Amino acid sequence: MPPDRAAIQAAALRIRDHVRHTPVLRLPGAALGLPVGELWLKLEHLQRSGSFKARGMFNRLLQWRETAPWPEAGALVASGGNAGIAVADAAAALGLRCEVFVPATAPAAKRERLQALGATVVAVGDSYAQALAACQQRQRASGALWMHAYDQPEVLAGAGTLASEIEADAGLPDRVLVAVGGGGLVGGMAAWFEGRVRVQALEPAGAPTLHAARAAGGAVDVDVGGLAADALGARRIGALAWALNRYIASADIVPDAVIHQAQRLLWQQLRLAVEPAAALPLGALLAGVIAPAPHERVALVLCGANFDPAGLATVA
Amino acid sequence: MPPDRAAIQAAALRIRDHVRHTPVLRLPGAALGLPVGELWLKLEHLQRSGSFKARGMFNRLLQWRETAPWPEAGALVASGGNAGIAVADAAAALGLRCEVFVPATAPAAKRERLQALGATVVAVGDSYAQALAACQQRQRASGALWMHAYDQPEVLAGAGTLASEIEADAGLPDRVLVAVGGGGLVGGMAAWFEGRVRVQALEPAGAPTLHAARAAGGAVDVDVGGLAADALGARRIGALAWALNRYIASADIVPDAVIHQAQRLLWQQLRLAVEPAAALPLGALLAGVIAPAPHERVALVLCGANFDPAGLATVA
Repeated sequence: MPPDRAAIQAAALRIRDHVRHTPVLRLPGAALGLPVGELWLKLEHLQRSGSFKARGMFNRLLQWRETAPWPEAGALVASGGNAGIAVADAAAALGLRCEVFVPATAPAAKRERLQALGATVVAVGDSYAQALAACQQRQRASGALWMHAYDQPEVLAGAGTLASEIEADAGLPDRVLVAVGGGGLVGGMAAWFEGRVRVQALEPAGAPTLHAARAAGGAVDVDVGGLAADALGARRIGALAWALNRYIASADIVPDAVIHQAQRLLWQQLRLAVEPAAALPLGALLAGVIAPAPHERVALVLCGANFDPAGLATVA
Repeated sequence: MPPDRAAIQAAALRIRDHVRHTPVLRLPGAALGLPVGELWLKLEHLQRSGSFKARGMFNRLLQWRETAPWPEAGALVASGGNAGIAVADAAAALGLRCEVFVPATAPAAKRERLQALGATVVAVGDSYAQALAACQQRQRASGALWMHAYDQPEVLAGAGTLASEIEADAGLPDRVLVAVGGGGLVGGMAAWFEGRVRVQALEPAGAPTLHAARAAGGAVDVDVGGLAADALGARRIGALAWALNRYIASADIVPDAVIHQAQRLLWQQLRLAVEPAAALPLGALLAGVIAPAPHERVALVLCGANFDPAGLATVA
């Protein structure tokens, strides 16, 4: 069952002492050369462990702990990206063991970051799917707490708190633009807004999981490539996000080149250093994929910043 | 005459359609490993043109325009740093010509950024003092509008709006920590708070202008070196800031190595990419130069981000 507003409110109370209430930066569209009334940038890339994933992972762990002790085997997740970092960080903060399964092809820097957070890194197979299979097998053997990167109710409810913060801090925008990988973030936000705001999903060309599901009338596998292979590389929209599809107004694709352009613009004009996924919403505006009316207030979720800033264009 | 609260309120109204109302990020001190109740980070590095200087420069230009036409010769400033960038940006936005005087030793990247903003760059002499002298000579000859980098009442009043925003958004903290170069920012903020908050000045070892003035009982020249040679390199505290010294609780020095450590920590823990000057307040806490009580709410001004992020430690 996907979460409802009550579950999201409960999540907000549960995680409030552990995650950051991130600020909203309000700007006229002209600040980025856009014919849009106001841009509301939710600076979620400043979140603990560098992405919105902290919300869902803390919520799942803390909700578990309300009714049961920690499993001796700790928590398990298969992820070479933000979900793995968030689980490792949350488990360390709560005093729980943690194993993160990554493909053997994962860069050394990613493994080292997970280890620095106290996680045991298990490198296995040469694809995410193989790491996932090994993780599931370990879970069955050990009884560890299984953390899905994006498709568990507690994870969506945690992500939904990002939407409730926007409403509390700034009110209801006309639209919210949000990047989609497996759909945990867009699902949680859609569950909060329940159609009161146009929630628009943006996807990289290399992993259009929601776009493909909407075209097919159900979740389907997509080929993962391009930028998405690194970050937004889920192969299929999560079942819970798909169950909330009625609250999602659209799912559009943004070309990789425009995503990079948006990422550079956020640094050059606003000094916001964010990862490519966080730049998708702005990319959609730059490319005209989303074309709001001039009076509209458009919320953009900057969802993460786990990347190497050395690639940003140098400005003295 | 230094500005008072009324002048700062007038400045806030005057510049509100031109500059950004930057957000405050509130965190428990534990988020940065500090035994401090709350940290209030004023994210002023997200300001237009990449630093707080935009506030003062827009205020000076717009206040001038209320009573007189633009001088045909436009605006002039001597600065190879944030003040020059802010004047060039504000002049371009308001349709005014602009000349920026820099030493011939200024890096090409800085000149190119000023030119990209539409300014005429005049490179002269091999020190800031020589560029300043040439700039003053040009002003006398041309009648251009003289923009001081930090020591004009309109510039301090503009900077003071940063303090009024903190109060409006989050209330009064127990302390505000702010970096000092020529004193435009600390002076404007001290003028707003008028002793209602402990305003504490932090300076790099290579340019302790306020520290030296407080020791000598009056503004004195200091030797500029180290980190400060690039950014906070005023040689002497401004007369207006000095006139507000009674509202400044302390002026302490932070070693360059700790400033760099604070800059890295802001990226690693919070994904805030800021220039060294903006990291001084956190550096003061890390070094124990400032030691608040555990319950205190401490505001830190992150004043700019005009730097090359390639130097930040890589985190995958």
